[in-house]
Amino acid sequence: MEKIKGYNNPWQATVLTLFPEMFPGSLGQSLAGKALKTGVWSLKSLDIRGFAGDKHRSVDAAPYGGGAGMVLRPDVVDAALTAVEHLPGRRIYLSPRGKRFDQSVAEALVADPGVVLVCGRFEGLDERIIESRKLEEVSLGDFVLSGGEIACTAILDTCVRLLPGVLGSRDGLKEESFIDGLLEYPLYTQPREWKGKTVPEVLLSGHHADIKTWRRKQAETITRDRRPDLWARYQK
Amino acid sequence: MEKIKGYNNPWQATVLTLFPEMFPGSLGQSLAGKALKTGVWSLKSLDIRGFAGDKHRSVDAAPYGGGAGMVLRPDVVDAALTAVEHLPGRRIYLSPRGKRFDQSVAEALVADPGVVLVCGRFEGLDERIIESRKLEEVSLGDFVLSGGEIACTAILDTCVRLLPGVLGSRDGLKEESFIDGLLEYPLYTQPREWKGKTVPEVLLSGHHADIKTWRRKQAETITRDRRPDLWARYQK
Repeated sequence: MEKIKGYNNPWQATVLTLFPEMFPGSLGQSLAGKALKTGVWSLKSLDIRGFAGDKHRSVDAAPYGGGAGMVLRPDVVDAALTAVEHLPGRRIYLSPRGKRFDQSVAEALVADPGVVLVCGRFEGLDERIIESRKLEEVSLGDFVLSGGEIACTAILDTCVRLLPGVLGSRDGLKEESFIDGLLEYPLYTQPREWKGKTVPEVLLSGHHADIKTWRRKQAETITRDRRPDLWARYQK
Repeated sequence: MEKIKGYNNPWQATVLTLFPEMFPGSLGQSLAGKALKTGVWSLKSLDIRGFAGDKHRSVDAAPYGGGAGMVLRPDVVDAALTAVEHLPGRRIYLSPRGKRFDQSVAEALVADPGVVLVCGRFEGLDERIIESRKLEEVSLGDFVLSGGEIACTAILDTCVRLLPGVLGSRDGLKEESFIDGLLEYPLYTQPREWKGKTVPEVLLSGHHADIKTWRRKQAETITRDRRPDLWARYQK
């Protein structure tokens, strides 16, 4: 089996998928796309089908014990993981059974030199490959996608924003949602008056300390009203 | 402003975005892509930039009160929403401040004839357009994406799977994660023995009742260990 060469770029994302053509997809545009072009990160998507052992290139089979859908074969996924063994980062399998992905998981991932993401399709992976390779199961949320590819795209987009040089301003990063454990305060821009609705006076005052206080109060109120769980954590 | 014609397809998804070329993206492939081709659902992405009023086609401006990033202008988003006023479904703005998206939200969305999704970019939308149009804020999770497009893709993929005729078997839908409030049991497929690891005996037994009992116990154990929140809800 041909080994995939290591990259020289700073943050190396590797995706094992049955739909390699879904990448870079929207990660090739906007913020993540610019960062891909300038070499802040690199993205390699690898077709799991290329690691099928038989002449029919079968990657899946019916589950033992019956039931709908197909399950990815452990030997095929194992061969794909062997081919990327030298590439850096945690081995993550996108699965609704996994630990919930959030901003702190993204921060941990970008602290590593890269990440290897395994996308399931059909019903999922054979349990033995998850155990044997000690794959970490990570979930985007309590919903079922048709495959791991979209979850993978969301995770990579979140991570890439955090890489040095991707956002124009580090301040933008510091002020936004979740960074200090609060939801974001309301934003206002031009026009100053729109359909009889004006911008809150304080934002036009030029008093930076007052603006800061107002914004924090707003962020606190929104967090308390909408997300009692975040609010409880913030108060500690 | 030109009105967008209503569609005739069963479930009508409309996306307002600054990156219309990100759609259908991965939704044009696999399960969702097939359903798009067979007309189970339709997808229209509309460029917010087309609704800019001035000759520079500006859609955003700096936030009043200062701070990093740009904010989408309320008048521009308003014009885009007016153009899709006749299209069915809830008006949803993808935002980390929103109600958490999950399987039950998806089920509610597909019970409607369609949905209209507004994708933010930069720092977000002007608060006045959210209030004025009573946009529902929905969040994919506690993380910050570079824009709403990827969240939108995840939501649409989750919804489309639930539409009649998209999954081969309705059983597949009933058995999977979250449907009965439990995480999914472990899956096994060929080869029967792999690297010295065998498939649990019960799955090879052919006793359907035993298999069902084993799977439920496994699902319960996994849910209890990994997701105390889901486990508490399930016990009620």
